[in-house]
Amino acid sequence: MQALKDRICSEGAVLNGGILKVDSFINHQVDPLLMDQCGQELARRFAAVRPTRVLTAEISGIAPALTTAFHLGVPVVYARKIKPITMPDTVYLTVAPSHTKGRLVDLIVSPEYLAPGERVLIIDDFLASGATILGLVRLAKTAGSTLVGIGALIEKSFEGGRQALESLGVQVESLVCITQLGEKIVFADDEQGETSAS
Amino acid sequence: MQALKDRICSEGAVLNGGILKVDSFINHQVDPLLMDQCGQELARRFAAVRPTRVLTAEISGIAPALTTAFHLGVPVVYARKIKPITMPDTVYLTVAPSHTKGRLVDLIVSPEYLAPGERVLIIDDFLASGATILGLVRLAKTAGSTLVGIGALIEKSFEGGRQALESLGVQVESLVCITQLGEKIVFADDEQGETSAS
Repeated sequence: MQALKDRICSEGAVLNGGILKVDSFINHQVDPLLMDQCGQELARRFAAVRPTRVLTAEISGIAPALTTAFHLGVPVVYARKIKPITMPDTVYLTVAPSHTKGRLVDLIVSPEYLAPGERVLIIDDFLASGATILGLVRLAKTAGSTLVGIGALIEKSFEGGRQALESLGVQVESLVCITQLGEKIVFADDEQGETSAS
Repeated sequence: MQALKDRICSEGAVLNGGILKVDSFINHQVDPLLMDQCGQELARRFAAVRPTRVLTAEISGIAPALTTAFHLGVPVVYARKIKPITMPDTVYLTVAPSHTKGRLVDLIVSPEYLAPGERVLIIDDFLASGATILGLVRLAKTAGSTLVGIGALIEKSFEGGRQALESLGVQVESLVCITQLGEKIVFADDEQGETSAS
């Protein structure tokens, strides 16, 4: 998606450890108009698989998941990392390694809001190694929901997330795909022309 | 706001310790259409004070702050509770007591996104004791920004937050005001007719 790509080019910063800092429009400060455009595009790409729930992980997933859910007209559930006192005693919990935190984090969803029969679309800000998304997939499957798709704003294809998700057999979409993150940010469509991930 | 009040009446649950559980449409599962309506109404109420930034606290503040910022056409900044590796070494940090966590939490904002001269509107899900909101006020003032207003989805007037904010001299708005939380949820407009907080 060109608007997101332009923004990464103008404001994204590459930090040590292959981390792309997008704190000025996604991860700390959020541009709500851009986020709405992204949600609209993700909703368009997944409308055909008829999701009934969007599932994401707090914190950075909330904004893109909310706008996607808005344009699909369905609720969004965000997995919590700490069980709040409002949750029932028995919950779905899985652990996933966090790249940016360097440790395992809990992903917790209440059975109240993820039920058998739901058609779940997972949305997150990044598709990197796929570890967080695979954690969300485990939660959806434990709940007896059907996974219908996975979408991300930004894919870092060199971290192998897409391969890790391949065996799930669902549609995987990213709005922008980055193939190299060094002194220069290289996008997939710079290398090979427009692709489904661009 | 009637739509929000109706939802609290049909789905809200009162837990021990004066906690209102709204996990099915605000705090764990989010109804994006309702959240958009709430954001539109908050934006309408604060348009005259011309905010240039919306400021909130992760996690539950993100959804209403994002939709308010969308309708105002300005960026939203959410204070983080743990400093991510993408933040600069020197940040604005304050501590605030968390009612639902029963301990102090950090609220951290990068100086990159909260600057002198900004006109800051603070938005959160709840206005209860006002402790979190006062923490956000301290961050805005430390940054040299001008506080122009404070808005919340749900006010629990019996916890005294509005009084705690009074000396700030800015417009304070809540979409729904609850005066008693016991076996029954009592709303301000049930007691005294339509008010500015209803």
